[in-house]
Amino acid sequence: MEVYMKKLINDKNNIVEEVVQGMIKAFPDKVSRVKNEPIIIRKNKKVDKVALISGGGSGHEPAHAGYVGYGMLDAAVCGEIFTSPGADKVYNAIKAVDAGKGVLLIIKNYSGDIMNFEMAGEMAQAEGITVKQVVVDDDIAVENSTYTVGRRGIAGTIFVHKILGAAAEKGYDLDKLVELGNKVVKNLKTMGMSLKPCTVFTTGKESFEIADDEVEIGLGIHGEPGTHREKMTTANEFTEKLFEKVYAESDVQKGDRFAVLVNGLGETTLIELFIINNHLQDLLKDKGVEVAKTLVGNYMTSLDMGGFSITLLKLDKEMEELLNAEEDTIAF
Amino acid sequence: MEVYMKKLINDKNNIVEEVVQGMIKAFPDKVSRVKNEPIIIRKNKKVDKVALISGGGSGHEPAHAGYVGYGMLDAAVCGEIFTSPGADKVYNAIKAVDAGKGVLLIIKNYSGDIMNFEMAGEMAQAEGITVKQVVVDDDIAVENSTYTVGRRGIAGTIFVHKILGAAAEKGYDLDKLVELGNKVVKNLKTMGMSLKPCTVFTTGKESFEIADDEVEIGLGIHGEPGTHREKMTTANEFTEKLFEKVYAESDVQKGDRFAVLVNGLGETTLIELFIINNHLQDLLKDKGVEVAKTLVGNYMTSLDMGGFSITLLKLDKEMEELLNAEEDTIAF
Repeated sequence: MEVYMKKLINDKNNIVEEVVQGMIKAFPDKVSRVKNEPIIIRKNKKVDKVALISGGGSGHEPAHAGYVGYGMLDAAVCGEIFTSPGADKVYNAIKAVDAGKGVLLIIKNYSGDIMNFEMAGEMAQAEGITVKQVVVDDDIAVENSTYTVGRRGIAGTIFVHKILGAAAEKGYDLDKLVELGNKVVKNLKTMGMSLKPCTVFTTGKESFEIADDEVEIGLGIHGEPGTHREKMTTANEFTEKLFEKVYAESDVQKGDRFAVLVNGLGETTLIELFIINNHLQDLLKDKGVEVAKTLVGNYMTSLDMGGFSITLLKLDKEMEELLNAEEDTIAF
Repeated sequence: MEVYMKKLINDKNNIVEEVVQGMIKAFPDKVSRVKNEPIIIRKNKKVDKVALISGGGSGHEPAHAGYVGYGMLDAAVCGEIFTSPGADKVYNAIKAVDAGKGVLLIIKNYSGDIMNFEMAGEMAQAEGITVKQVVVDDDIAVENSTYTVGRRGIAGTIFVHKILGAAAEKGYDLDKLVELGNKVVKNLKTMGMSLKPCTVFTTGKESFEIADDEVEIGLGIHGEPGTHREKMTTANEFTEKLFEKVYAESDVQKGDRFAVLVNGLGETTLIELFIINNHLQDLLKDKGVEVAKTLVGNYMTSLDMGGFSITLLKLDKEMEELLNAEEDTIAF
């Protein structure tokens, strides 16, 4: 549906460039960019460690550029809104941050991202840079979707950035990072729901249509279809619904410890996210789940979409220690 | 205007209680509460320092509870949505955090807050606790407003929390903190604009009505009237407009260093805030203003309102050092 787009932008064909500039002007001590490219890189590149790169379409801020910095990513490649960055951009990011120990690409599972990041990896490998990848597919809502084969990668990706970033800082080599990354992904489960579409800034259109009193369960972060629609009800009912699905996939054993993320999709307020967390923590307690760390906030958005997701990550000792390591980024 | 309220809540009469519970369940290592009260307090109370308290109506999250912790506030008193907390609540906060060195109340300039915080201070003083206050009135848009005599206190308040919190941690006594606080407030100027009203969760009504292609300049964070309405235009034009007003009030001399805050009001995306910051930093550079620190994000919101504000704080050496001190809070 075309809507009057009341958004604070200047030129819908220049959004990402202005965001990249605005970000490095805000945090000149933390981040810089690859010249003329939509690639945010860590200001003081650490040598002698594996370099971590993520990215994808823009519109999910602070993901991923907000997670560039000590203890997390070395670079984030910013595609146009909801559009995978080209292989050449990813290749330029690899060239910019490789420090001789290899490069790890953290890719959310969307066909475009997989294709472009893999192609970039091959281009760099042809020049002698070792490149490996970890694919994140934490969204348990649907198998296969508009832009995905298999499950989609969504908000849980933040935990992958954090844990692998801490491990890279500690000196893990590329193979060990891939192994750890696959372990994190295996234990990472997310499910979300949407109340309101986002306005896609580049088209001026709403990402989907929905009735005033309806919500969509399992909707993707670009407005891809979820599992079904329901009538609007209370925060607690939706929290229970999503929790039960995520819990059922999480293979919980007595004494397991978890990291929890209550992620807002954009226009959903912290008031709502804390109300959700209030009930979620009670549900976790009822199940005997021990919570090692909780995050509540807008960690991976979908422009101004209304809604939230719940992520559970089953930890082991290694993951928990790395999750609690120091970092210095804009947004974590 | 009554709207269908599609918000993730359970009971509109129990919102603040659920938020307080949700917050302490998310960050049990950082914050706790005064029993049965909507008062977030620092987990490990530091003895032997002046205690800092702020608060006010809810609906501005993460303000103020998100700024409770090491290096910032000792307590935040959470009123109902857009409603000042009663004097008894503020009094209970004072009793909870006083460590024998006196208590400083940081109050945004709204008549209700002034009345309730002052009354609470008097109640505590009658029991021998020394209580003083700093009133923040950084909003340059209007003199006097719906709920205010003089200028309103808005997003710049975050810098007061930060600088006074760091000073208290360093051992400043109560009188020195009041003096420093008044200096910060004198140098603190903010102005905002709104694109879209918020939905007031307790009433289900929009906070004001505005045409699709209009914005309001200088609107308050509860929807109080601003200076005037204008036609919607680009991010850069609004940035220039607000910047020129804030700059004109800031008494800039060559070589002055500033802290900058680009604050989102709720539904405005980080994309928009970074686009605004991109142009704002160019305008500052053109004027020869040196920027010591920039914050971009949702630091003091107005539920799901659309819009932003620009804050400039003229620093001296003391303020700049304190601004860069360590802190450990949920939201700063």
